[in-house]
Amino acid sequence: MIVTISRQFGSGGREVGKRLADALGLEYYDKQLVTEIAKSTELNENYVSEVLKNGGYRNYVFSFGRSIPLVSGTPNTITDILVAQQKIIKAIGEKGDCVIVGRSADAILAELSPVRIFVYADQESRVKRCRERAPEGENLTDKQLIRQMREIDKGRKKLHDLFSNYPWGDKDGYDLMLNTSYTNIKSIIPHLASLVCDFHVN
Amino acid sequence: MIVTISRQFGSGGREVGKRLADALGLEYYDKQLVTEIAKSTELNENYVSEVLKNGGYRNYVFSFGRSIPLVSGTPNTITDILVAQQKIIKAIGEKGDCVIVGRSADAILAELSPVRIFVYADQESRVKRCRERAPEGENLTDKQLIRQMREIDKGRKKLHDLFSNYPWGDKDGYDLMLNTSYTNIKSIIPHLASLVCDFHVN
Repeated sequence: MIVTISRQFGSGGREVGKRLADALGLEYYDKQLVTEIAKSTELNENYVSEVLKNGGYRNYVFSFGRSIPLVSGTPNTITDILVAQQKIIKAIGEKGDCVIVGRSADAILAELSPVRIFVYADQESRVKRCRERAPEGENLTDKQLIRQMREIDKGRKKLHDLFSNYPWGDKDGYDLMLNTSYTNIKSIIPHLASLVCDFHVN
Repeated sequence: MIVTISRQFGSGGREVGKRLADALGLEYYDKQLVTEIAKSTELNENYVSEVLKNGGYRNYVFSFGRSIPLVSGTPNTITDILVAQQKIIKAIGEKGDCVIVGRSADAILAELSPVRIFVYADQESRVKRCRERAPEGENLTDKQLIRQMREIDKGRKKLHDLFSNYPWGDKDGYDLMLNTSYTNIKSIIPHLASLVCDFHVN
């Protein structure tokens, strides 16, 4: 069984993925994919992370509500990163029994018919969630935070749509779309896990 | 608890609603609403049904792939129908403990915080489902059937969007979106029912 989780920034998609993997006894892949891509391309891990977050090449990163210039990387490294990402995700997919969060895995593994989940929430809930999980010292205004959330989702959409017939967040590309604004992620997991198994059968 | 089901034509939304109501011990409302609207407005039931299906006034109905002229009704009856629909759905919502399929109930009952589900499927699955359930003697080409499905969904969208901030089928207006293309509706119901209860709590 392969489950892919796409998610709006701040919607709790990563929590859904991690808990779902635990409930179903599946391997969980998320940020460690960035480490693997960095190793494989011999690029700096932060750089790979920023490129994937921003949806392609930029000579600056958007962080803590400010633009910070990037010192490494060229447009050519983008293809290296994308090639490595595809190769690594395909290898994970072939092993099977996993939950993969982000990284366009739904599109890259389309032939293996993963159960495709999209997690989203209203803006208020996402802001609240980001605030609760903000790193020490982050001091963004709501406006800066919302702008950052939008930028990140724009980057996710940009990279995802490179690989998919379905636009990121468009229902037709998913089996299940879950709004986390009015529910507690921890408590829905057992039911969601059972539901996911039914999608896997067919 | 109030559950509203919006659905693409042919996606099995009505089956999801009926089975969910049975599983949760809730009242189920669907086509009988048309009967009640017809009684309340003293209009012909078929006419009310066609107006609601087409999303407003037309002097013809689209049926069996052909346009058939309508003999009754004027643009003025549309408001009568909408007023009656709203009144009847509000009364049902106030009693609570129900599943309502269609009729913009998600928007009309927004203040009562229903659990809002959207059921959809890919075109191929919807065509297949329509064929299996076609009335005796229906003999549409795929092209005609697809055109009819689109017209009906266009009508649903039109009426829904009169009452809602969220466009019909847009994820932000729903708590859960369910793609029935690759699953068996009957087998997912127990899990879906549990999931719905968790959305109700919050």
